[in-house]
Amino acid sequence: MNKNNKLSIIPLGGLGEIGKNMTVFRYGDDMIILDAGLAFPEEDMLGIDLVIPDMSYISENKDKVRAVVLTHGHEDHIGSLFYLLRQVSVPVYGSKLTLGLVEGRLKEYDVAAPNLIPVAPGDSLTLGPFKVGFIRVNHSISDALGIYLKTPVGTVVHTGDFKIDQTPVDGKMIDIHKFAEMGNQGVLVLLSDSTNAERPGYTKSERTVTEALDEHFRSAKGRIILTTFASNVSRLQQAIQAACAYGRKVALLGRSMVTVVNKAVELGYMEIPEGTLIGAEEIGRYPDNQMLILTTGSQGEPMAALSRLAAKNHRSLQLTPGDTVLISANPIPGNERSVGRIIDSLMRLGVHVVYERASGIHASGHASQEELKLILNLVHPKFFIPVHGEHRMLRQHGKLANQTGVPKENVFIGENGHVFEFTAETGRFAGKVTAGKIFVDGLGVGDVGNIVIRDRRQLSQDGVLIVVVTLDKNRGCILDGPDIVSRGFVYVRDSEALIDEARNIVKNVLERFENQPITEWAPLKNGIREALVKYLFAKTGRRPMILPIIMDL
Amino acid sequence: MNKNNKLSIIPLGGLGEIGKNMTVFRYGDDMIILDAGLAFPEEDMLGIDLVIPDMSYISENKDKVRAVVLTHGHEDHIGSLFYLLRQVSVPVYGSKLTLGLVEGRLKEYDVAAPNLIPVAPGDSLTLGPFKVGFIRVNHSISDALGIYLKTPVGTVVHTGDFKIDQTPVDGKMIDIHKFAEMGNQGVLVLLSDSTNAERPGYTKSERTVTEALDEHFRSAKGRIILTTFASNVSRLQQAIQAACAYGRKVALLGRSMVTVVNKAVELGYMEIPEGTLIGAEEIGRYPDNQMLILTTGSQGEPMAALSRLAAKNHRSLQLTPGDTVLISANPIPGNERSVGRIIDSLMRLGVHVVYERASGIHASGHASQEELKLILNLVHPKFFIPVHGEHRMLRQHGKLANQTGVPKENVFIGENGHVFEFTAETGRFAGKVTAGKIFVDGLGVGDVGNIVIRDRRQLSQDGVLIVVVTLDKNRGCILDGPDIVSRGFVYVRDSEALIDEARNIVKNVLERFENQPITEWAPLKNGIREALVKYLFAKTGRRPMILPIIMDL
Repeated sequence: MNKNNKLSIIPLGGLGEIGKNMTVFRYGDDMIILDAGLAFPEEDMLGIDLVIPDMSYISENKDKVRAVVLTHGHEDHIGSLFYLLRQVSVPVYGSKLTLGLVEGRLKEYDVAAPNLIPVAPGDSLTLGPFKVGFIRVNHSISDALGIYLKTPVGTVVHTGDFKIDQTPVDGKMIDIHKFAEMGNQGVLVLLSDSTNAERPGYTKSERTVTEALDEHFRSAKGRIILTTFASNVSRLQQAIQAACAYGRKVALLGRSMVTVVNKAVELGYMEIPEGTLIGAEEIGRYPDNQMLILTTGSQGEPMAALSRLAAKNHRSLQLTPGDTVLISANPIPGNERSVGRIIDSLMRLGVHVVYERASGIHASGHASQEELKLILNLVHPKFFIPVHGEHRMLRQHGKLANQTGVPKENVFIGENGHVFEFTAETGRFAGKVTAGKIFVDGLGVGDVGNIVIRDRRQLSQDGVLIVVVTLDKNRGCILDGPDIVSRGFVYVRDSEALIDEARNIVKNVLERFENQPITEWAPLKNGIREALVKYLFAKTGRRPMILPIIMDL
Repeated sequence: MNKNNKLSIIPLGGLGEIGKNMTVFRYGDDMIILDAGLAFPEEDMLGIDLVIPDMSYISENKDKVRAVVLTHGHEDHIGSLFYLLRQVSVPVYGSKLTLGLVEGRLKEYDVAAPNLIPVAPGDSLTLGPFKVGFIRVNHSISDALGIYLKTPVGTVVHTGDFKIDQTPVDGKMIDIHKFAEMGNQGVLVLLSDSTNAERPGYTKSERTVTEALDEHFRSAKGRIILTTFASNVSRLQQAIQAACAYGRKVALLGRSMVTVVNKAVELGYMEIPEGTLIGAEEIGRYPDNQMLILTTGSQGEPMAALSRLAAKNHRSLQLTPGDTVLISANPIPGNERSVGRIIDSLMRLGVHVVYERASGIHASGHASQEELKLILNLVHPKFFIPVHGEHRMLRQHGKLANQTGVPKENVFIGENGHVFEFTAETGRFAGKVTAGKIFVDGLGVGDVGNIVIRDRRQLSQDGVLIVVVTLDKNRGCILDGPDIVSRGFVYVRDSEALIDEARNIVKNVLERFENQPITEWAPLKNGIREALVKYLFAKTGRRPMILPIIMDL
């Protein structure tokens, strides 16, 4: 091994954002990729379905990639794997549940079945110059892993998404001994989850949710409808246990709820007593106080089951007064308004809705400040890179690291594409590689860029107005038209006078070009556009996109 | 006065929503309108500038309207006044600052100068069968009023937007004695602000902000940039006092900041010592530690001064490391992400940003649960209508009323347009009048409805594709085209093959109609549309709006 080789850590996603996590570890000519996530589009990314990391750096170095390692099965960690596997064909390591969820998604994508290799906490394996080991962590999905990476220059620890649950529901606590052991042996770099770095104190144990749920199950008189993230297997397990304790059957609503529960049961991450689970179509056969319905839509997603229930257009279930809806999740920032609207709609149906933070029926899956400091102290790394968070969260996490003794100059607040380079002694920012957002829209990956989005934005604001005219190109005179078609601009039936006048304006412009052969179209089109923009803005205060189309004979 | 007359209370806005507050009080043939606010569009109201209440009920009864009464100068209470005054020409009553803000806005609208009549707390006046009195309340704008309305069937109290600030900065506490006196005399109906009905405890006094601000002013080494709602006159006054105490000049950025401060100074609601205020262009002349800059944009509004500062494109100021930005406002639900992005951008500039709730530099302007209960207990009304809140907040406020002794059947959780009818003894839901949202888009009021919005939504998702062809209408053959123009669908330069094939598909459809006179266009256009939808979806997974336009000769 070349003594001059350095370890590079290159986040391609997840820094300065919550979402599309992906990190490259490179030593010489060997690379490992940790996680391959997606992000959901922001409100100004009109029409975009998903956002994935720009993987140019990986495709430029595809012969160096040894493996993909997944920490857990959430979309922001596995959702771009299928796009990544189009670039590189390498083994994929992850826990059993993670790989189960990956498998469930594979059929949606046109990608060859990858080589999926299950690992368990405590396992380790050698990948080129790296020895990769897996550490159990607690998170809002079962079977989540942190990793350590022994490299020729030193050890790297990456927490993955985690919290420290001292009383986990499944009894499987985060392996704090392993973090301590790593710290004792000496850690060069720690990368740690910053999602809740702004939140003081400790994150509540999942077990506190058990008690809160129990209370609501005890007092509910009608059906109970519980919504949470479909991937939150522990939460679903708790709800099912409560259902059994109070003699309720369980039905599942929503495609991802069905998929995840089946997969979790199949892999042994969830236990549902025989006869408990019924089909959605059987709900009507049981008395209201013997039903628990688990449903998707806790984030107010408009097409999810809970939205349909609130809007009274779900095909297999109608809510009625007496039903109780438990919203066992907090709205992700940006979703408050849509969740609020759903709660309001449910209440208008007379349904009892339990949703406040204070109700205790939700606990976050990410560590708060005291837990973050504990990990920092256990691992006491020489260098620290806060990951998995928006910029201000990374900064706050950086401050926590300073407080626990990591010197300021050893904390790297990065951006996607930054290269952090380490020797056994030193760490430094060593330039940038290509990184960014690739938009997935329908089947297109990366074909929608800023120009298309800018057009969509203009169309969304004031619509479009199309002017078509057929001209005699030799004499410049009008043969047919101008015809005007508009969409999203004004309600056409109420705007005849406006459109008639617009037509006259176009005619006036065309008159200027009459009686001469037309050699270029641009002056004519620009003339039409300018005259219409001016007229329409004066009359309506709006600026529709104006598209003049000239046919000629 | 007719013994059979009843009092009707008809909310036209503000129920089931935060925004566009407007309530009609009617007794026989006399009506008073309380507040005339606007709402900002929700994210799915594409291209809409403002939302105002449907005022059909008012225009159908315009001869009955005696007056408009305004509680305070926030947009959600005065922003649709200008549209209302196009319907009815009646006196407008409000406090001095409220009317000052109304006057400042009048010139933006094409409406005759209304008859603005200033009132002060303690005043009362007779308007037909109503005696209207004004009560001082605390809120996040100065000069806010609650009202009482003595009617032939009993007294109504409406709190307006309020909190109970026991230590207000201007020394002018809410007149709780008046609320107590009303309660003693007997109140038929109370209407009260539900904004914070879900929040336990008490809302902090504005004075607590003084201490927090002082600490940041004491420790700041460079310029201080403070952002809050421009209308929060007390907050701005506090910031200016802190500036004076620490020897800083004050500059204003943002149009509404300049307008409100000038108006507040002119009317005596704000005092700025001589020589303190400087022009934005003079900022550079003073050392950094002698500057306070007050700016708009606390809600992340993309065109406001703070967004421009964060994006480094403000024309009169460039932020530098060492500057401190104090965000003295909480994001309104729905704005968290845009505010978060601005904080991140500021931090990337090296600016110190103070923004957490915990920082103490903001206090809400609305009463929390303990204050709401206190008002309920002081007024102890026979009937209660929670107002100014989304449905779940109204419900929660209703529960608080039950807790303070208002029977369940006397609490009315309403919707906009509901008519609540009262005699001296009874209260009941008495049907509905027209109510709803009217969209303002540019100069158009109400001309954009669901069809236009639906088109904008489709355009925003996948863009538009226009097919134009000139046909010989007698022989059905193509004279020119088909030409295809698309916007917001694909990046055209990369999609030549797709568009070429689309053109062929159109030609194939047209062939079916060849060699015969064309008598109707619909089958031809539908044929084109169907063929293209199918092809484009198969190729791209997208569904652009397809507009076939046929010219004929």
